[in-house]
Amino acid sequence: MISLDDVRKAAAVIAPHVVRTPLLPFGSGWLKPESLQPIGAFKLRGALNALARLENRSRGVVAYSSGNHAQAVAFAARLHGVPAAIVMPSNTPAVKIEATKALGAEVFIVGITERVERAQVLVAERGSALIPPFDHPDVIAGQGTIGLEILEDLPGVEAVVVPMSGGGLISGVATAVKALSPGTRVIGAEPALAADIAASLRAGSLVRWDPLQRAQTAADALRDEPSELTWSHISKLVDDVITVSEDEIFAAMSDLARRARLVAEPSGAVAVAAQSKLGGGVAIVSGGNVDPELLREVLANG
Amino acid sequence: MISLDDVRKAAAVIAPHVVRTPLLPFGSGWLKPESLQPIGAFKLRGALNALARLENRSRGVVAYSSGNHAQAVAFAARLHGVPAAIVMPSNTPAVKIEATKALGAEVFIVGITERVERAQVLVAERGSALIPPFDHPDVIAGQGTIGLEILEDLPGVEAVVVPMSGGGLISGVATAVKALSPGTRVIGAEPALAADIAASLRAGSLVRWDPLQRAQTAADALRDEPSELTWSHISKLVDDVITVSEDEIFAAMSDLARRARLVAEPSGAVAVAAQSKLGGGVAIVSGGNVDPELLREVLANG
Repeated sequence: MISLDDVRKAAAVIAPHVVRTPLLPFGSGWLKPESLQPIGAFKLRGALNALARLENRSRGVVAYSSGNHAQAVAFAARLHGVPAAIVMPSNTPAVKIEATKALGAEVFIVGITERVERAQVLVAERGSALIPPFDHPDVIAGQGTIGLEILEDLPGVEAVVVPMSGGGLISGVATAVKALSPGTRVIGAEPALAADIAASLRAGSLVRWDPLQRAQTAADALRDEPSELTWSHISKLVDDVITVSEDEIFAAMSDLARRARLVAEPSGAVAVAAQSKLGGGVAIVSGGNVDPELLREVLANG
Repeated sequence: MISLDDVRKAAAVIAPHVVRTPLLPFGSGWLKPESLQPIGAFKLRGALNALARLENRSRGVVAYSSGNHAQAVAFAARLHGVPAAIVMPSNTPAVKIEATKALGAEVFIVGITERVERAQVLVAERGSALIPPFDHPDVIAGQGTIGLEILEDLPGVEAVVVPMSGGGLISGVATAVKALSPGTRVIGAEPALAADIAASLRAGSLVRWDPLQRAQTAADALRDEPSELTWSHISKLVDDVITVSEDEIFAAMSDLARRARLVAEPSGAVAVAAQSKLGGGVAIVSGGNVDPELLREVLANG
């Protein structure tokens, strides 16, 4: 498992390249708007830390991702002047594919179940380094810097609500939060349609859901499942999980646009939907890369 | 004229109650997203400073405003536990009227030319203190704290682009910026439909435009005109003005939602539209209180 010290080292590495996001008062709690990062999502933190710590990156980097990690690796690679090849599943929103290409990455579109294999082939063919979306200590430590910042701004806050998918974000944030403020509750948030971590915590061990089941949520960045590494953090450090319906996710997107003046993607609104059930705490708005047409629909309905 | 010291004192007064907004990289420049303040606009800074420095506020406060100053005074009054009466013109967007009421203020809707008079009647009847939207040194000093923060984050930045209407924001920002970094250019931004300050700077003295002419811009928070006090700051400290068309304002709103994940109102996008003509610098996104239907239209059009 990663340590507070790993997170602190990551904070020093990434500080020049990420936005120090503020906490925004919101209802009876606060928002941590990671949607304001240059690529529109927290993923930049982990990718920057992982790429900076790679010993051999001269032959480029490879990543597979449903979107935000793709842009994060493309951004970090451009910053370090190395080529990036990104494998994306065919159900990725167009806005995320275009943004990744715009950052100079070579993009490969494949079926949702083939992306890991295709990335491994690229690594073998090119001698590039793989930067996984969550299953790596350096990625987790980078995401954990969000936890450091939350406690710097609000020491001893009652609860932090974190969206969960592969579990990299919550593993890092929980490591920092529990080390600095053991009394702060770390609450995971999941779409009910992809609530495999909630099921795992109830069962006391990792429960696997069919990827096609998880793919049903509109929260396209939350369709992954944890690895052994992230599960080891989650099972020890996460206090509770709140699951939310698709309607609750869309309502939170609308609330964020109207009351917080933030554009959030469905995945980015999941912790906010959970926060409104909890009635307080800090919710991480994890990303804002939404197709404008979906944002328009959400605004029309509420 | 106000001084850097006035701005520094204001910063200390308001710090506990405002969001320390970050600079967000955007194209070849940066954004200062004041739309993320609790009331969705920079106006909170000036209202908080003015109200905190009022000696006699026990009989409440009165303000007249097309919207954002209304919410700012209502918020500040609630914070200090004093009643607020707000006079708003009848063409104010509904979203701003509702938000002002939701903050506990008593709202009076009047014709656009009657608002100052009505506010003065309320002051006379109730013995309340008037907090003007821009024509007061304490208000100007509060807005100037944005300039302090910009230079703290980006010392010696080439240019700061600031929307202009009554001129309180740019007067305060220019005071701070020119005192700390005389080489930084302070550029005003105006809708072409309400470009009376651009005309005044060309003429070398205050030029008055018909209020009904200025009311034609969709940038509803930029329909005011400067006072002698703000003009004395603007004429000495502002380097240049960039005017923008209504189409350019809407395009900037769309860009902000898509590329910066920020909801901006038309007035809040005016400096961003000007920044894209300038090709860099820091643009102040002054507010985000937009009727959702207008945001939907703007997103539909590109």
